[in-house]
Amino acid sequence: MSETNFTYVIKQVELALRPYIEAVCADIGMTPAQYTALTVLERRPGITTSNLARRSFVRAQSMAQTVDPLLHAGLVRRTRDPEHARRLLLHLTEAGSEVIARARPAVAAVEQLILADFTADESAAFADFLSRVRRSLDGGVPAGRVMTPETR
Amino acid sequence: MSETNFTYVIKQVELALRPYIEAVCADIGMTPAQYTALTVLERRPGITTSNLARRSFVRAQSMAQTVDPLLHAGLVRRTRDPEHARRLLLHLTEAGSEVIARARPAVAAVEQLILADFTADESAAFADFLSRVRRSLDGGVPAGRVMTPETR
Repeated sequence: MSETNFTYVIKQVELALRPYIEAVCADIGMTPAQYTALTVLERRPGITTSNLARRSFVRAQSMAQTVDPLLHAGLVRRTRDPEHARRLLLHLTEAGSEVIARARPAVAAVEQLILADFTADESAAFADFLSRVRRSLDGGVPAGRVMTPETR
Repeated sequence: MSETNFTYVIKQVELALRPYIEAVCADIGMTPAQYTALTVLERRPGITTSNLARRSFVRAQSMAQTVDPLLHAGLVRRTRDPEHARRLLLHLTEAGSEVIARARPAVAAVEQLILADFTADESAAFADFLSRVRRSLDGGVPAGRVMTPETR
């Protein structure tokens, strides 16, 4: 076993990333929560608000507050699930895709900084490690918790 | 270059970790911000509040709000810097160390979950990757930002 405290180091890396993400979001006039919601919708078109919330580890209520301005701004649209008439599905609009596209060069610059001294093999290994950690965490159950905590 | 969006995946891993960290902190009656402050003080005894804030990417003002209850509870103590009489240095007390020790088995369980399917070599490589990313991010300057953002 390594001596590294991964819980601590992962948090430190995430904290170190934040100012960069805040800057990217500020450039396109989004909050980080809004930008994250858009990028999740880009990956998973047609998910429900509650699934979007679950994937972002926030309560459905706070996700609704994040999504409402995006609906009003025409960056996201809702459709009815053809199989469950009462279920509403979320999609990026073309304007929403354009907002993400506007952020892309700045995001690419952050990605380059993250991998500044990585070889291609190391980048691939790092990606693999992160996705395995994510899978392990998704499979575990945090002791004494049912609700996931608020995030932003 | 890998196709992975590391900015996104690192955030997702950190979000997936949160419920575990919240559960560990709840067990010992701390907020995550307080627990983090204690663990930073364990690693860097004698740092100033403003350095502690900088290392946690929060404003000195919010770190003071995090540290005050820890001072009152006797988990942290302040001493004067012998070289700069006006500078106050923070230290864990024995009671503070005991609080961290109480969390240790639960933290170890989370660490084990993170590395559930990692070999020792993979763990070492992962630790190395994370610390190199941290260094690269610390060396960059987020576009258009001088202030670091609030975190918790």
